[in-house]
Amino acid sequence: MSDTQLHPDQGMTPASSGKAITIKDIEAAAARIGGEALATPLLRHPLLDERAGARVFIKAENLQRSGSFKFRGAFNCLSLVPGEARTRGVVACSSGNHAQGVAASARLLGMTATIVMPADAPAIKLERTRGFGAKVVTYDRETEDRDAIATTLCKQSGATLVHPFNDPAVIAGQGTVGLEMVAQAAALGVELDHVLACTGGGGLSSGIALALASRSPSTLFHTVEPELFDDYKRSLDAGTRLSNAAKSGSVCDALMSQSPGEIGFSILRRLAGEGVTVSDDEVLDAVAFAFTELKLVVEPGGAAALAAVLSGKLALTNTAVGIVLTGGNIDPQMMVKVLSRQ
Amino acid sequence: MSDTQLHPDQGMTPASSGKAITIKDIEAAAARIGGEALATPLLRHPLLDERAGARVFIKAENLQRSGSFKFRGAFNCLSLVPGEARTRGVVACSSGNHAQGVAASARLLGMTATIVMPADAPAIKLERTRGFGAKVVTYDRETEDRDAIATTLCKQSGATLVHPFNDPAVIAGQGTVGLEMVAQAAALGVELDHVLACTGGGGLSSGIALALASRSPSTLFHTVEPELFDDYKRSLDAGTRLSNAAKSGSVCDALMSQSPGEIGFSILRRLAGEGVTVSDDEVLDAVAFAFTELKLVVEPGGAAALAAVLSGKLALTNTAVGIVLTGGNIDPQMMVKVLSRQ
Repeated sequence: MSDTQLHPDQGMTPASSGKAITIKDIEAAAARIGGEALATPLLRHPLLDERAGARVFIKAENLQRSGSFKFRGAFNCLSLVPGEARTRGVVACSSGNHAQGVAASARLLGMTATIVMPADAPAIKLERTRGFGAKVVTYDRETEDRDAIATTLCKQSGATLVHPFNDPAVIAGQGTVGLEMVAQAAALGVELDHVLACTGGGGLSSGIALALASRSPSTLFHTVEPELFDDYKRSLDAGTRLSNAAKSGSVCDALMSQSPGEIGFSILRRLAGEGVTVSDDEVLDAVAFAFTELKLVVEPGGAAALAAVLSGKLALTNTAVGIVLTGGNIDPQMMVKVLSRQ
Repeated sequence: MSDTQLHPDQGMTPASSGKAITIKDIEAAAARIGGEALATPLLRHPLLDERAGARVFIKAENLQRSGSFKFRGAFNCLSLVPGEARTRGVVACSSGNHAQGVAASARLLGMTATIVMPADAPAIKLERTRGFGAKVVTYDRETEDRDAIATTLCKQSGATLVHPFNDPAVIAGQGTVGLEMVAQAAALGVELDHVLACTGGGGLSSGIALALASRSPSTLFHTVEPELFDDYKRSLDAGTRLSNAAKSGSVCDALMSQSPGEIGFSILRRLAGEGVTVSDDEVLDAVAFAFTELKLVVEPGGAAALAAVLSGKLALTNTAVGIVLTGGNIDPQMMVKVLSRQ
């Protein structure tokens, strides 16, 4: 694992970054996306409680429109593109779930979308992104820079860039997951002690952490990352943004970001508790558990928080724990592999 | 298909049958099971609405404790066994989901359970039933009479028989699915025009029909059955209980009952609308759709109502339709087969 420190200005900075995000932005996002995003359920399961020794509340964002939470941030962001710029469309880079969220949002808003995706993204994600009507441009994860490709595309067409995580509108949209979790837990008479979510660039995690800080300040948020992509954990420990040595090699295709997003890190360094890492085996066990016991289809990256709970990575005994199942866009072949392991 | 007419007294009649079931029994069941059964969500998905040309509300009983709605009826029924008889335990016959519902309920209530299951039941159902601590006795679906085996076991041990569908306490328990659907739809400002559920012996279907008749009388209930096991459709058309010629051969292992239950039929002949039949192919397409688009694990029998909607078997355009996904206990090998078809 690398401990390369990033310069503050390194990486792509979208036009809208830099504004401080507040709970009002998340509430505005909730109002904006409410007509199109699904209010996903907060589920329980006695067997999961038994395994965890805790009361676990499962936010099932795999059931979200486009198959992951990414629709929330994308739809919020695209809704904010001003009228005239809408005709020039949007560009996004994504391993697949942001791609589908942007593509689905663009279709609903009558915009064109071009998505820069890794050539080794799960076939289902490439296929579904095209299915939503987007144009897909592929790149090599090991040798090419997706941000540079996206920037060039934007320069050529005048399209608006929709960053997967380092954008206040995207973070505010993802933060609606946290708003809903707090409200749904409260409706059950519960205040959550911990919330765990998988963390790539940190858009979802920072959005949830902001929502919790405002609406449920006693709840502690934790990042969950794959072993080779634990940049947030190491960065939070070090107090500065560090990148990963690996560029591929995790079963969690959705979580292989190279370093924390600038905005997400600035939020999570204030608000996040202990970071957790999970192995590929723990993640695949969690995908199988979700299938067999919870009856939910969850992709590997989407099962990281469940994996953290099932493998006892945090001291959670007798607490109320919220976890986010972030996505369900798993290739059938991957699920066949998971089911054959048992 | 056979049109053999059954004598009114044919088939096993449990001690508690004969009482008229009312909405008060379903409300009492809801109170009784509320602490243990899960309040499963009523889900939406834009792609399903698009495919159906209707607003579809999905009651996800595959997410229920023990993996199917059967827990509701079983827990209600076992809760009503008087104190002294509890020590002698319970016996049930079941293709697998009732087995798990009874086994899980018996464990919670500190009772022993013996389950008579077909030898060709999905391995996962046999395994999970044993996993809940029940003793399993297998029989040959083609040559042996499961009711006779169960009756003998009860005579030997003094155990209480828990019929999978022809019992008022079981029907009242399953009816809580209908109660919840009406309340959850109302919370969304919706009155359902139609509700579709798969129908084996008719315990769930008659319970839901009773709940709808009382709480949402403008909602029309429809039975959904596999092609070779359309005994309810034919019986409702004929006005008398008819049995099926086939004893096996459907992909819907949960729906291969031989004829309508006496009590269920007496309710559904008053309250059910047009009966629907679905083919194995339509069912497997629905299982795949649930996996790929809804991100839900549904077993073939549990996907029958979804199959009816996806294959356009009823005129539902522009209506509000409730469907029940009744169970998710699918063998991994069966899911691998389904995913390989695509």
